[in-house]
Amino acid sequence: MYKFLKKSVTSPIGFSAYGVHAGIRKNKNKLDLGVIYSVVPCNCSAVYTQNKVFGAPLAVTREHIANCKIQAVICNSGNANTCNPDGVKVAKQMCSLLSKELNIDEKTIAIASTGVIGQRLDINPIKKGILNAKEKLSVDGGNNFSKAIMTTDTHEKEISISFKIGQKVVTIGACAKGSGMINPNMATLLAFITTDCNISNSLLNFAFKKAITKTLNMISIDGDSSTNDMGIILSNGMADNKLIDSKNSDFDIFYTALEYILEDLTKKIAKDGEGATKLIECEVINCSSQIIANAIAKTVISSNLVKAAFFASDANWGRILCAIGYSHCDLDASNIDVILRSSVGEIQVCKHSSGVDYSESKATKILNTDVVTIHIDMNNGLYNSKAWGCDLTYEYVKINAEYRT
Amino acid sequence: MYKFLKKSVTSPIGFSAYGVHAGIRKNKNKLDLGVIYSVVPCNCSAVYTQNKVFGAPLAVTREHIANCKIQAVICNSGNANTCNPDGVKVAKQMCSLLSKELNIDEKTIAIASTGVIGQRLDINPIKKGILNAKEKLSVDGGNNFSKAIMTTDTHEKEISISFKIGQKVVTIGACAKGSGMINPNMATLLAFITTDCNISNSLLNFAFKKAITKTLNMISIDGDSSTNDMGIILSNGMADNKLIDSKNSDFDIFYTALEYILEDLTKKIAKDGEGATKLIECEVINCSSQIIANAIAKTVISSNLVKAAFFASDANWGRILCAIGYSHCDLDASNIDVILRSSVGEIQVCKHSSGVDYSESKATKILNTDVVTIHIDMNNGLYNSKAWGCDLTYEYVKINAEYRT
Repeated sequence: MYKFLKKSVTSPIGFSAYGVHAGIRKNKNKLDLGVIYSVVPCNCSAVYTQNKVFGAPLAVTREHIANCKIQAVICNSGNANTCNPDGVKVAKQMCSLLSKELNIDEKTIAIASTGVIGQRLDINPIKKGILNAKEKLSVDGGNNFSKAIMTTDTHEKEISISFKIGQKVVTIGACAKGSGMINPNMATLLAFITTDCNISNSLLNFAFKKAITKTLNMISIDGDSSTNDMGIILSNGMADNKLIDSKNSDFDIFYTALEYILEDLTKKIAKDGEGATKLIECEVINCSSQIIANAIAKTVISSNLVKAAFFASDANWGRILCAIGYSHCDLDASNIDVILRSSVGEIQVCKHSSGVDYSESKATKILNTDVVTIHIDMNNGLYNSKAWGCDLTYEYVKINAEYRT
Repeated sequence: MYKFLKKSVTSPIGFSAYGVHAGIRKNKNKLDLGVIYSVVPCNCSAVYTQNKVFGAPLAVTREHIANCKIQAVICNSGNANTCNPDGVKVAKQMCSLLSKELNIDEKTIAIASTGVIGQRLDINPIKKGILNAKEKLSVDGGNNFSKAIMTTDTHEKEISISFKIGQKVVTIGACAKGSGMINPNMATLLAFITTDCNISNSLLNFAFKKAITKTLNMISIDGDSSTNDMGIILSNGMADNKLIDSKNSDFDIFYTALEYILEDLTKKIAKDGEGATKLIECEVINCSSQIIANAIAKTVISSNLVKAAFFASDANWGRILCAIGYSHCDLDASNIDVILRSSVGEIQVCKHSSGVDYSESKATKILNTDVVTIHIDMNNGLYNSKAWGCDLTYEYVKINAEYRT
């Protein structure tokens, strides 16, 4: 159904990007500054962390998006520009410098930062970095941009697909960074989505926010909601499809593709959680409300004890029931079934909220894979949910004990 | 002010206890069944986990306490007797067997279990264990009882103190188990408190519940609220002080001592959190409400990222601000001060929600101790709170990855 393309945020018509080493990070081999540019201004929607302590770049982006179309994005890694007295000033300087290079209004620029909190962000290396990135902006530069936004990510997270709306080929490209300090309520990571789809601002916003609640908001790596992360989508209309301005069949095609893209990024982020050895998907069915279904899926995926058991491929389903039990005050825990599933097979470990006889060695084989599903049937209603996370490992502790050293 | 005694739950007049190896746990060197007995029936109050999936023993204890005075407690480790189809039946059998040995009504017995969830608890080894424990019941047996309730605890957690009410010496003794699957809302661990104080049931209940909210409910080891844990206090009145049946000065003396005992247990539990190398105390002052003060203290102490940083003695205060920011939706994060403190000294790392210049090496020295305080001033109101936790270490992951193996 979808054609998979090799580039990411630069796959849609009219977008170019690049990432450089500006010098924010000490390691010269790590890119730390990226720019995305569209040849025409874009409709735009964004979601932000709900953390009350949030980065200066988010304040600036919020202000810009409220007033203007967006034509470019700048993002640095290595420093979150958060809890700094001059944070907003520096973020605005970055927009101003880029706007001069690109010859666009500085208010058409969205900005994001990720890295250590509470260290002042020096504008000096960034000046040269912006110049450098602008000179190298390219329709092949999506991958470089993806590299520039990484922190403890072990690899880039990118995807782009094309599909038809009417007779026109429409493309969506995306990249994200994730790894640590990741727990929903959006936006607890950075995600950049570009598209050449011709869609009204209000429907772009509706589609993005709906898809986010079912995907990026359903990740948890460690329960820590970041101060800085955000998701942003830009649409420049250059695919020239008939303007989507109602929830018609064209909208459905676009929405389905967007949700596909975001679910793909979600899984990539969860699987590359700090120190993770496996992706855990928690699928909850037959709950009495959507809120309860979401709460169960998120709570199970967030439980340190479940995560540590899965690291050891141990089918310790009692911890899954325990996490279900503290996820929401209004749930009925009397008739829960649990099945563990992976590419190797599946096994029922709990029926009617009690243990069943099962082969521990078979369960271990199923869990000893890199993608595992916890299937929970609450037998109590009509609502389903899914959430994604990863196991808790020695490496997670190591990464986070030594992050600043 | 207090006289510290060597025994624990058997310090107050009229209490005896013992712990034995019944065979629930495979390791013969580990005690796994304990009994506490009072020569006269006791007033009693208890708090229970709020997990919707809860152990069979809790259902039985709730029923017994609602109808009777309590004269004995039985507790096993090694098996939680939770998510078992015959759990309630087995818990009642245990009470019944003990009641025959002690020649008391089975409904005057409280029961608790801790260990793996979802494995049937075999009554056979317990029969002999109860007989054995009953024969050895002793006023010196408090320490043995403490040992019998341990799971991954590295040592017993006990305290007992005496003080005067009027001309009478009153004693409170206590022991607890903690370590993992520990996150508030009571009762996320096992705590047994005995006293010979003469106090009405309603005031005992009031004092216990009030003190619990300020102590045991403010611990978090790993954010996992257990299915099984509970706290229980028994008062047999044998100190012969004038009955406390109003909130008079005698009550105040008793309450203050009880809170002291519970805070002591709380710190011991937090410091012995699974894999912990240090106790972390989070002290929050000047908040606009008690709910916000509690939420901040608990959220900071629960943050995996804060905990991992403290393991490395890294003063990564940005993570503290981040955790404050996602702790409650109604807080004012604009003027936060953070000071880190230990026996070695103290250092301010954040003022007005921004970083201040400080010596990283001095900060590391302060954090490289086994008891550290995070002092947070929200500069925004009159409410204070304290919570206790520990660092996140390789050992935590190891313990929980290998718990069942």
